[in-house]
Amino acid sequence: MPRIVVQAYEGRTLDQKRHLVRGITDAVVDAYAVSPETVTVVIEEIRDDHTAKAGVLRSDRNAGAASGGPGERRTSA
Amino acid sequence: MPRIVVQAYEGRTLDQKRHLVRGITDAVVDAYAVSPETVTVVIEEIRDDHTAKAGVLRSDRNAGAASGGPGERRTSA
Amino acid sequence: MPRIVVQAYEGRTLDQKRHLVRGITDAVVDAYAVSPETVTVVIEEIRDDHTAKAGVLRSDRNAGAASGGPGERRTSA
Amino acid sequence: MPRIVVQAYEGRTLDQKRHLVRGITDAVVDAYAVSPETVTVVIEEIRDDHTAKAGVLRSDRNAGAASGGPGERRTSA
Amino acid sequence: MPRIVVQAYEGRTLDQKRHLVRGITDAVVDAYAVSPETVTVVIEEIRDDHTAKAGVLRSDRNAGAASGGPGERRTSA
Amino acid sequence: MPRIVVQAYEGRTLDQKRHLVRGITDAVVDAYAVSPETVTVVIEEIRDDHTAKAGVLRSDRNAGAASGGPGERRTSA
Repeated sequence: MPRIVVQAYEGRTLDQKRHLVRGITDAVVDAYAVSPETVTVVIEEIRDDHTAKAGVLRSDRNAGAASGGPGERRTSA
Repeated sequence: MPRIVVQAYEGRTLDQKRHLVRGITDAVVDAYAVSPETVTVVIEEIRDDHTAKAGVLRSDRNAGAASGGPGERRTSA
Repeated sequence: MPRIVVQAYEGRTLDQKRHLVRGITDAVVDAYAVSPETVTVVIEEIRDDHTAKAGVLRSDRNAGAASGGPGERRTSA
Repeated sequence: MPRIVVQAYEGRTLDQKRHLVRGITDAVVDAYAVSPETVTVVIEEIRDDHTAKAGVLRSDRNAGAASGGPGERRTSA
Repeated sequence: MPRIVVQAYEGRTLDQKRHLVRGITDAVVDAYAVSPETVTVVIEEIRDDHTAKAGVLRSDRNAGAASGGPGERRTSA
Repeated sequence: MPRIVVQAYEGRTLDQKRHLVRGITDAVVDAYAVSPETVTVVIEEIRDDHTAKAGVLRSDRNAGAASGGPGERRTSA
């Protein structure tokens, strides 16, 4: 410990993940004054058909946006 | 999303937590190219009598170290 | 937030998941008086060989039930 | 199973929680066609000084809003 | 890693927790052939008014049982 | 409940998992004096490119070790 769990949508490259775990580890070491060896990071990827906002699956929301549905806004987080 | 959960021992100051959430958010924004507004950080503090390593509660391990028990090593992560 | 995580066995259809996230979101909006836009639902599916009850993996329990093993009861939750 | 974990800010009444667990359970029973007895709901409350958005702890963000800080918006989710 | 998280109702003694983390660690070491030093156990206690089964908070269920409500059964898990 | 979640690297056999859930269930029953039927175990496997220690993904760390990189140590937990 500390252990940091990152929950994010699928679709990042391996290089982005390398970048992510390095940056988070540095941030934890800096703020909490611990040795890097004690910091574990775990990435959990969440499928688009397994998460919903406002009651609509992200996979359905994106499908709507792709087909030009009104009022749909694609967020990339 | 992304949502970042930090699991750590108790005992950090409010300023350390401020520092932590700022640093982690910057790291995620930088690596994943998302807007800061999409990044949520949650801190979960774990009590010393609710975590164990090698089968020994951290509260017992630290008590042993404080009393000069042999082979006990206090880790501050 | 609120964020709702649903942990369930595999095997639901996409329509069941659509139904689920809509119903849960409505329930949260109704009870907590929040805007639907603030409610995130995440589904986590658990494999039959990755969960156990009474010390027996669900995959083994179901195999026993299928072959007519005594005292085995298949639960569909 | 299913097991539903609700992560939300502190500050709900006991009646709101009663309402919440009843509504979520009904939604799960309805969508997944399971018996109510198989549905477990767990509420996890998150302290205002243990969660951040855009790198700012919610406790600091709310303090800014209370004192009339510019651009601060109090969200009640 | 491995990391083992135990989610249980409140109300265990410190000795029960000592017993628990020792037993779980031994079980993981035995099954997965890892060194005890690599095994972390974390206990998460869940309040009676923060968990529900069949849509009823455990605190309400137990109150019903205590007052002789019909069909209420106190489970001690 | 109790519910026990085991987070571990990939690569165990089905027999190791059988062994694991049996051993953990026995340990919980023994320490907490509950019926085995109330004990649920869930295994979560973590990919080597989804976890990091000291800011380095485990997949990169192992690749370094395999190619004889200096100072790399392969841990099997």
